[in-house]
Amino acid sequence: MLLKDLISYNDAKNIIFNSFNELMRYKYKVVDIRSSYNKISFEDIRAPTDLPMFDKSAMDGYAVIAEDTFGASETNPIILNLIDNTNNIIKTDECVKLSTGMPLPKEANAVVMKEYCIEEDGFIEVRRGAHPYENVARVGEDVKKGDIVVKKGEVITPYHIALLSSLGIKNIKVYDLKIGLLSTGDELVDLDDFNTVNELKNGYKIVNSNSLMLYSLINEIGLTPTIYKRARDNKEEIKNSILKALGENDIVITTGGTSVGDRDYTIEAIKEIGKLLLHGVQIRPGKPFGFAKSILNDEEKFVFILSGYPVASAVQFELFFRNYFRARKYVYLPLNRNIASTLGRTDIVRVKLINKDNKTYIEPLRITGSGVLSSITKADGYVLIDENIEGYEGGDIVKVYFL
Amino acid sequence: MLLKDLISYNDAKNIIFNSFNELMRYKYKVVDIRSSYNKISFEDIRAPTDLPMFDKSAMDGYAVIAEDTFGASETNPIILNLIDNTNNIIKTDECVKLSTGMPLPKEANAVVMKEYCIEEDGFIEVRRGAHPYENVARVGEDVKKGDIVVKKGEVITPYHIALLSSLGIKNIKVYDLKIGLLSTGDELVDLDDFNTVNELKNGYKIVNSNSLMLYSLINEIGLTPTIYKRARDNKEEIKNSILKALGENDIVITTGGTSVGDRDYTIEAIKEIGKLLLHGVQIRPGKPFGFAKSILNDEEKFVFILSGYPVASAVQFELFFRNYFRARKYVYLPLNRNIASTLGRTDIVRVKLINKDNKTYIEPLRITGSGVLSSITKADGYVLIDENIEGYEGGDIVKVYFL
Repeated sequence: MLLKDLISYNDAKNIIFNSFNELMRYKYKVVDIRSSYNKISFEDIRAPTDLPMFDKSAMDGYAVIAEDTFGASETNPIILNLIDNTNNIIKTDECVKLSTGMPLPKEANAVVMKEYCIEEDGFIEVRRGAHPYENVARVGEDVKKGDIVVKKGEVITPYHIALLSSLGIKNIKVYDLKIGLLSTGDELVDLDDFNTVNELKNGYKIVNSNSLMLYSLINEIGLTPTIYKRARDNKEEIKNSILKALGENDIVITTGGTSVGDRDYTIEAIKEIGKLLLHGVQIRPGKPFGFAKSILNDEEKFVFILSGYPVASAVQFELFFRNYFRARKYVYLPLNRNIASTLGRTDIVRVKLINKDNKTYIEPLRITGSGVLSSITKADGYVLIDENIEGYEGGDIVKVYFL
Repeated sequence: MLLKDLISYNDAKNIIFNSFNELMRYKYKVVDIRSSYNKISFEDIRAPTDLPMFDKSAMDGYAVIAEDTFGASETNPIILNLIDNTNNIIKTDECVKLSTGMPLPKEANAVVMKEYCIEEDGFIEVRRGAHPYENVARVGEDVKKGDIVVKKGEVITPYHIALLSSLGIKNIKVYDLKIGLLSTGDELVDLDDFNTVNELKNGYKIVNSNSLMLYSLINEIGLTPTIYKRARDNKEEIKNSILKALGENDIVITTGGTSVGDRDYTIEAIKEIGKLLLHGVQIRPGKPFGFAKSILNDEEKFVFILSGYPVASAVQFELFFRNYFRARKYVYLPLNRNIASTLGRTDIVRVKLINKDNKTYIEPLRITGSGVLSSITKADGYVLIDENIEGYEGGDIVKVYFL
């Protein structure tokens, strides 16, 4: 992989995200709202009704016709007949006792707080007048019928679930993508295939941790991952494993075999199955990244070819996969020291937040290699250094994405 | 509930968090690392081994004894014998071909990148010398045996899963709290108990959305929620429902019945079951909040009494429950306009991030009532206005917690 063959971060992102756009046009399933947490909405969801659906009391008190209470005061209270709410309607000079949240009877148009009333023998004394719709939560005050309450592509939060269910919505359409995870490498062992740490150490084995990491990362964005048994460094085995996984999924993510010999197996295997759309991106970490398309039974399938180094594969997944489905929040904050970079390459620098004396600074984590897993668990976010920028100085304001 | 009876936000938090500290001393279960995503670590987890476990090649190239290559250059290459790696050891003037990530043979102490070597007939020409441990990922470079890799109370991320599994850790202890969710209110209907929106509207019914919201919020922090059938506004029914739920859980969260009459049922019911530790907190929204302790079969159980208003109950859950288990990240950022508050009360103000011209501002959301669910779905974070502060002005720097 020569430097001149690499494509830029933005070009790579465009190729991949355009492919996702295609795929996302028809990949959905209908789920019960109770199972929709963290899933991604397939469409704009509009309110089928106003919310509240009816005028409700916003206080504990008495539903009245506001005009009946005009002029009421401590010294000049107004007397109303207290009726029960059986018929759900009041007439002039009548009132009904309500708790917060209860619907207003017909004809009532205000609630007098109980603190301003004295109840006695079927009457109440109103000691403060109410203007029309005082202490009333009105129909449509929160949401109007037809309002978009969840946008296409939005991730469903617990708050969305509350809102959607309040609107009487029981099922929604969410994206449904099946993702097969395949690690390659003779040195890898799956979690079930060893007993002790010494077995790993003495056997020079490395745990297939990438598949486990990606499994959680995909669950986190509401898609459906499946882990496949790791493939050895053998073109036919890799090819057959990818074909099997592609047949059962929409996308396959391979990791490992980053070394040239091994990588060739994966790349060569993929070339026999489909079309390599890109290979090698001007980013650090994460340069040895590939993306391919394959047509299987008339369906478009995609392969993400990730590095075997956990930090590199985490970055590749973040930039080219997760960010399509669930972009990170970002803010602009000052750096507390320099970061060096190289023109022509996009750098991803993990950072920690430093809060001190009512100010927030961003501290770049010192990471020595893309194999250094421990650093990634300590980051609060990351900074992308654009290919046109040679680096930043302490005090510079940078865009920080939160993990 | 009179203003003077309310306790402060900090006092309430201390009472509750101290109770959690007690409970958390013994509530754990052991889970497979593959099921640990988003769970909370019960203890400090220490590395059982160095990582890497053995010296590995950091490049594609040739493992050598560094001293053999000293002085090698383009014009004065050094010749080494290329041997196969069967015995996993080299002697002086020997080398072994390695891919990135492969273990170094014994006695080897450096890797010469393949770019600086020419391979021919069982020999290689080294055209650049390597110093000791050049291009070697050394034992313990990432993690040292005994290092704490996950702290007690930390939430397990996909990156932790990668790190823990790489260390050969297959199972970990995580907090295990069972949470029963119980809504009260005659006006509530559960999701399965209606068919159409018109049924709700015409019957003046409100969907029991709080339990669904809390169910997701509790899943989000890795604890185990169970929803109970909603209880009607009747002291005995509420009491029996709470007792049943307490018997099957460590904590019960009730919502609804915020009005005085209804609230009394819940509070009165709880007083018969246990001890009300607090009732009413100086916060907005969320004032009508209660917390109680009950001893059942010699075990301490807790009841959180939340408001029926979704925004209020979301805030109560955030401040008094979630924040114990998973504190939000925060940064200091400037406000783009004033926020008013009241001395003696802690206000929770939801905000949006506004990114413009390389600066981030915080915009308070205009929220009219604690029933306004739609606003909560639009917030990026929130600001807590301390009880000693009367409000903020545009331009003031405030602490923003990210949702």
